[in-house]
Amino acid sequence: MNASDASRRCVGILAGGGPLPGQVAAAAAAQGRDVFIVAFQDFAEPAVVAPWPHAYVRLAAAGSILSELRKHDCGDIVLIGPVRRPSFRDLRPDAEGARILARLGRALFAGDDGLLGALVRILGEEGFTVRGAHEFLSQSLGRTGALGRHEPDETARSDIERGVEVVRELGKLDIGQGCVVQNGVVLAVEAMEGTDAMLKRAGQCRQPGEGGVLIKLCKPGQERRADMPTIGPRTIEEASQARLVGVAFEAGATLLTDPKACIAAADNAGLFLFGV
Amino acid sequence: MNASDASRRCVGILAGGGPLPGQVAAAAAAQGRDVFIVAFQDFAEPAVVAPWPHAYVRLAAAGSILSELRKHDCGDIVLIGPVRRPSFRDLRPDAEGARILARLGRALFAGDDGLLGALVRILGEEGFTVRGAHEFLSQSLGRTGALGRHEPDETARSDIERGVEVVRELGKLDIGQGCVVQNGVVLAVEAMEGTDAMLKRAGQCRQPGEGGVLIKLCKPGQERRADMPTIGPRTIEEASQARLVGVAFEAGATLLTDPKACIAAADNAGLFLFGV
Repeated sequence: MNASDASRRCVGILAGGGPLPGQVAAAAAAQGRDVFIVAFQDFAEPAVVAPWPHAYVRLAAAGSILSELRKHDCGDIVLIGPVRRPSFRDLRPDAEGARILARLGRALFAGDDGLLGALVRILGEEGFTVRGAHEFLSQSLGRTGALGRHEPDETARSDIERGVEVVRELGKLDIGQGCVVQNGVVLAVEAMEGTDAMLKRAGQCRQPGEGGVLIKLCKPGQERRADMPTIGPRTIEEASQARLVGVAFEAGATLLTDPKACIAAADNAGLFLFGV
Repeated sequence: MNASDASRRCVGILAGGGPLPGQVAAAAAAQGRDVFIVAFQDFAEPAVVAPWPHAYVRLAAAGSILSELRKHDCGDIVLIGPVRRPSFRDLRPDAEGARILARLGRALFAGDDGLLGALVRILGEEGFTVRGAHEFLSQSLGRTGALGRHEPDETARSDIERGVEVVRELGKLDIGQGCVVQNGVVLAVEAMEGTDAMLKRAGQCRQPGEGGVLIKLCKPGQERRADMPTIGPRTIEEASQARLVGVAFEAGATLLTDPKACIAAADNAGLFLFGV
């Protein structure tokens, strides 16, 4: 099959939570592509999924997932929206799911990168092409420099530098994607708890003085087709609650779930939104 | 003055929270030394301080601190027990305190190591000899291997290995002293929030399966005379609540606040206590 055949085939969206699955669907449709959403039960939001052709499946029902994708002739696949790792007790895989769990093997116990990388590999072996959400949402990718009205000052720039160094080192260890730095002191480091929880904690362990920056970056080995750092209005709200002065993100490798709302929220709260 | 003169002089204990200041006082007294406790208001525990000659001072009242130490002819000084960094608003230094704040300068904004290292240096310049609490409490230092009935299994040993690697790297960045690893996945990393808060969070982001180890180490540049990792019965309790299988610590560089109680609590909860 040549590229033009491939591009006429349906885009399959494996949808976790949040608004991004709907945005990918709209962007693909705007490119003239058909769209089918495989919505993960308990994670995908009904209001996001409802406008599009879709089916709900359990996360571990790999047989149903693959057959839905094949039935709707999906060639390209996008994995988008957060899901929690289920416990084995809740997993209840179907027959195909059990086979795929066996193929995942030790990757099930690896960090997120290992697990998601293995999933992308298996979907490739099954004949699908996994695309990054950012390939459809290029206008939602954070760009270099200040996105809103506010700019980092000298202190904030040096906190950003320190944060970048810290997150790069953490990334090499396959830990988290972010940290909070205030006047050179690392207040909090993100592991499995997620950015919002880290921001709450950073607010509670602020040090004397003003300042404080959230730094979020892609990990060096991060599977961007399955797991890209995202920033939403909620991130800005939590950063503001923690009395930070801004948010720094990796330009070209961070999705803003709602760029206009993020920038407006940052402008109102007096925070910078800065792509490095 | 020769060593025998110095050893007759009083041991000054700058006391933060918890039971260790009292233990250092008892150990120094058992060596035939006089003891005087300078107890930090709002941090030192009255019941711990009460049995010994003592005075309460505010953390920033450096003038009072130095004059108390000199009045009681303290040559050796021990800094022991946690204090929080005060905010500048709450600091209200006395005249000597303001001079010392100026001498601390940029170290005030450094990580803990920088700040404590600078304090130790200044106390040295003022003519005092800063001793580590472990020089008096050698029997409370965690030793190599299993302290109680339980031993780490293969999985736990490999989690300990991963945790040691992670904390070593974090330490190079002057971040925290600990992390929690479960089956190779780093659940949580400690920055400014402290070990107890990290353990609570680790319990909430457990991954499928059993296991999980708390790893605590000294940072490479850590000022052991002012800030040594400690493990207490509370640590064991929190680790057990988070359903961990054990606690690994740096042998010879970790103080157990109450070794018997820690080992009994670990034995009862089925946890190992393992010095690496």
